[in-house]
Amino acid sequence: MLMKPLRGVIPPAITPMLDNDTLDLAGLENLLERMIKGGVSGVFILGTSGEAQNLSYAVRKELIRNTCRIVNERIQVLVGITDTSFSESLSLATVAADHGADALVAAPPYYYAPGQAELVQYYTHLSRNLPLPLFLYNMPTHVKVVIEPQTVRTLSENPQIVGLKDSSANGVYFQKVIHLLRDHPDFSLLVGPEEMLAQSVLMGAHGGVNGGANLCPELYVALYYAAKSRNFEMISALQSQVMDISLALYDIGKYASSYIKGIKTALNLLGICSDYMAEPFHKFETAEREIVRQQLIDLGLK
Amino acid sequence: MLMKPLRGVIPPAITPMLDNDTLDLAGLENLLERMIKGGVSGVFILGTSGEAQNLSYAVRKELIRNTCRIVNERIQVLVGITDTSFSESLSLATVAADHGADALVAAPPYYYAPGQAELVQYYTHLSRNLPLPLFLYNMPTHVKVVIEPQTVRTLSENPQIVGLKDSSANGVYFQKVIHLLRDHPDFSLLVGPEEMLAQSVLMGAHGGVNGGANLCPELYVALYYAAKSRNFEMISALQSQVMDISLALYDIGKYASSYIKGIKTALNLLGICSDYMAEPFHKFETAEREIVRQQLIDLGLK
Amino acid sequence: MLMKPLRGVIPPAITPMLDNDTLDLAGLENLLERMIKGGVSGVFILGTSGEAQNLSYAVRKELIRNTCRIVNERIQVLVGITDTSFSESLSLATVAADHGADALVAAPPYYYAPGQAELVQYYTHLSRNLPLPLFLYNMPTHVKVVIEPQTVRTLSENPQIVGLKDSSANGVYFQKVIHLLRDHPDFSLLVGPEEMLAQSVLMGAHGGVNGGANLCPELYVALYYAAKSRNFEMISALQSQVMDISLALYDIGKYASSYIKGIKTALNLLGICSDYMAEPFHKFETAEREIVRQQLIDLGLK
Amino acid sequence: MLMKPLRGVIPPAITPMLDNDTLDLAGLENLLERMIKGGVSGVFILGTSGEAQNLSYAVRKELIRNTCRIVNERIQVLVGITDTSFSESLSLATVAADHGADALVAAPPYYYAPGQAELVQYYTHLSRNLPLPLFLYNMPTHVKVVIEPQTVRTLSENPQIVGLKDSSANGVYFQKVIHLLRDHPDFSLLVGPEEMLAQSVLMGAHGGVNGGANLCPELYVALYYAAKSRNFEMISALQSQVMDISLALYDIGKYASSYIKGIKTALNLLGICSDYMAEPFHKFETAEREIVRQQLIDLGLK
Repeated sequence: MLMKPLRGVIPPAITPMLDNDTLDLAGLENLLERMIKGGVSGVFILGTSGEAQNLSYAVRKELIRNTCRIVNERIQVLVGITDTSFSESLSLATVAADHGADALVAAPPYYYAPGQAELVQYYTHLSRNLPLPLFLYNMPTHVKVVIEPQTVRTLSENPQIVGLKDSSANGVYFQKVIHLLRDHPDFSLLVGPEEMLAQSVLMGAHGGVNGGANLCPELYVALYYAAKSRNFEMISALQSQVMDISLALYDIGKYASSYIKGIKTALNLLGICSDYMAEPFHKFETAEREIVRQQLIDLGLK
Repeated sequence: MLMKPLRGVIPPAITPMLDNDTLDLAGLENLLERMIKGGVSGVFILGTSGEAQNLSYAVRKELIRNTCRIVNERIQVLVGITDTSFSESLSLATVAADHGADALVAAPPYYYAPGQAELVQYYTHLSRNLPLPLFLYNMPTHVKVVIEPQTVRTLSENPQIVGLKDSSANGVYFQKVIHLLRDHPDFSLLVGPEEMLAQSVLMGAHGGVNGGANLCPELYVALYYAAKSRNFEMISALQSQVMDISLALYDIGKYASSYIKGIKTALNLLGICSDYMAEPFHKFETAEREIVRQQLIDLGLK
Repeated sequence: MLMKPLRGVIPPAITPMLDNDTLDLAGLENLLERMIKGGVSGVFILGTSGEAQNLSYAVRKELIRNTCRIVNERIQVLVGITDTSFSESLSLATVAADHGADALVAAPPYYYAPGQAELVQYYTHLSRNLPLPLFLYNMPTHVKVVIEPQTVRTLSENPQIVGLKDSSANGVYFQKVIHLLRDHPDFSLLVGPEEMLAQSVLMGAHGGVNGGANLCPELYVALYYAAKSRNFEMISALQSQVMDISLALYDIGKYASSYIKGIKTALNLLGICSDYMAEPFHKFETAEREIVRQQLIDLGLK
Repeated sequence: MLMKPLRGVIPPAITPMLDNDTLDLAGLENLLERMIKGGVSGVFILGTSGEAQNLSYAVRKELIRNTCRIVNERIQVLVGITDTSFSESLSLATVAADHGADALVAAPPYYYAPGQAELVQYYTHLSRNLPLPLFLYNMPTHVKVVIEPQTVRTLSENPQIVGLKDSSANGVYFQKVIHLLRDHPDFSLLVGPEEMLAQSVLMGAHGGVNGGANLCPELYVALYYAAKSRNFEMISALQSQVMDISLALYDIGKYASSYIKGIKTALNLLGICSDYMAEPFHKFETAEREIVRQQLIDLGLK
């Protein structure tokens, strides 16, 4: 049962895998138990951090089933159904509902770039066919289009559409959305980039969907509460740790996928799960792995 | 059995549909018979013009089966397996091979942008697992990355990779590829934009994968032969018709999908097939349909 | 004499003009007096809001002279010297120093896109030749390149480079800069977009260079102090006004210049200065002007 | 006196310099004499290859005077007046007319991105104030906007606007322009990228403004004539040389300016002129210079 609004930290879980077609189920359990122990409010699977688009549908569905089973209603489960194919989104949604997930998340279809009017129609048609409430997912670097603030506002009038995850890193965009939704306190506003968690919560966001919370869930949860309670001494100390992690781990190597690789390698070095990456990506080689190991030591995480 | 190199016009077929989950099989037959009668060398299904990404896998597979059945080896059948998921690409490839298609076509994975080294690995891994030869598909506006000329050159040494479809519209790019592949006469070089068919064939390309050939296959086939035989009087007359069609039909409405909508509406007005568009797109409303009708009359096509 | 760090609101002044080669000097005086009365810490002329690139050098120099004369050391004067030509930047800087300006501001050269190593060399060479301290100006939408956080950090070790104005709207970028400069408390960190003023000051920024402060200087100054004193009730009320102005005035018409036109038209309707726009832009026609008039009434500004 | 249409090869001259404020006049003379001897129809100074935006106005004006003096009406002289400031464009145009240049060339203003309606107004106002005929200059990578084909068509009705230089590398764009201007045979259509010279002339372009013609003017002139006379054996041989130069010299180093640096270094190694680059760029260091030297030997140019 979805909380409205959804508050706190909801990590966008990476997907532990043994090979391209096999989940690392022990790793998944470690990962989720660690998040729950760290105080997260929920978990978001099959997002960008979860390499969702690079997984087969069989793996995606197995991930939904196993996540729901392990979580067992202790925290909220949000399931990404972002897809270029309307039918495949519906199929994933059905599996999510059947296994007890709480909500769905969908970025715009991402091969052909739709316009704003097409986005309104798309989300309206989609939500009408979904068995669970839907979060919009703004992710312009990957899908090429922005869900404009006025489009979010328009779609928020649809009772099936219950929130927004904004991963644009655009502070003007997010302030516009907060302002346009100010009379709609149940509509969840969640920020993607963890570097913006504190400031976003200070300005009215409900929480964050922050990749680093795969690694140190308690840090981001603490930062969320520091911001919520406007404890600036605490914010300052925790934000500094968040920035150290961001600068140390997310830009190793020159690839678009270096952020996910950094987190997966770190989790592997901490003994939590496999660092296998789905095609077309590949886990870090020895040299980059050593950099991650050293950074973890310097960060006091290992 | 794939021709090497593949020469002539290979239309990127639109996908006739009755609704989001049902092919318009009668329309598909009309479309393919018209192409074959028009002299095309092959047909490319499940490309960008085919709305492949917006179709369910069930529909994609049904389209492969029916296209192979209708074509019945009269022309070459190329099947798009472009996907973000490696496993789903393989699954489409298997269906294509099982039903007698001649080759596969894959653009880079398109949610996460890979680098050139990752593209080399990806296509190498992919082709090793494919039951049919593979064409590279350069489509940067939709997939966000270019398959650089040197990457094409490197991949051309793989015997499973047999050609390139370039839809970038970048004339410098295509000349670089032609030059780098000049000692590899069996590697098929096909140009996407029909406006560039004549000049590309004059400069050494083997043919075109031109959307307009859904509508007037014989026009593009004639232009191909005019360019191949360096008949400039003919080129001039036919190129003018090609440009008239391009300017008249492909930019109606302001959407990224207006080119596909223009062709589908025209085909529907000519009685060939349904103009249904897969979600998140929608067929033209009355006003835009009337523009297409008038343009067809002005073009002498109706 | 430049304050270090520079705190508070420093409006990026629009340039009041009578025609393409003539300043509206009475308008300029009205504008500056209003800002000073509104409590701003300084004024930034010849920035993006000032249409600097579209002005002749004669007009730019006249604007520097007259601004310094009118301000008469009551507030800080920052002068934009952003130029593709190194020599012309130096020439503007000399005029600024001769008339008593306090600092200079330069975005990267913007026709040819330089790399980060070239930016380090460029700013190092430039600052060495300047008679006044220099602010970096991050403005990727207009100049096509980002001054990366590590580049800002590197350049901050140069004593002639004293701060950054960030107009990227990228919240992750700005948090990275704040973090990398945390041991350099004199390096001024100023945020461009007014929608991000409050959150940026809460997180450690020194102030804002906010276009709306042309129109309502006291509002942005009040928001700055509310954020500085962590008065959340005040922040909430003022931020709401800031967002109302942003949504009401900055997107009228569909042009890239609509933000500047909106502010100039509003200032003209309030009797402050001319709304002439330098070529290639043109002031709003009657219909758009009427929208601005109505918005000003609705905002309680007229 | 401008030829209409202007046919043949018109090199976009690099600007030989001794330092940031001093032309290399001996080098300029060598460069121009070599071009004239090589059979070019004209020379285009102060374009992108000429680093125009990075030069002071004093240097730009000195370059105009000296080029006109050296050329002494033996070939056509086209002068770039591309500028963000309308007044400075006019000022450059006056100098060009006073010293006997034949035509002017202007890309869109490039700091603030104008829309198509603004481009029509801008070029209309500009040409009305110019003492010489004007070429449009389509250069979207540097100026961020395309002069759309319909905008070119609209502006071609203005008798002061006499042609287009297209440096977009977009083959669809150029074919659209050729088609839309087919009833306007005096409007000069010139292609920028030398890799596209042959195909563009085959399809109806009047000539090329090709950077490589700084280095080997006779090669590009020969390719132009081969294309004009449809001598495909010759085209094939010459195009191969053009592509070898393009692949060997234009991508050394990773900077946006590597193309200009490659040409300037090659010219310096051939003893023609200085390789100084205006700020913010810098000439190649020893390692890259050695690569150019080796490439020149491999190309048979040294």
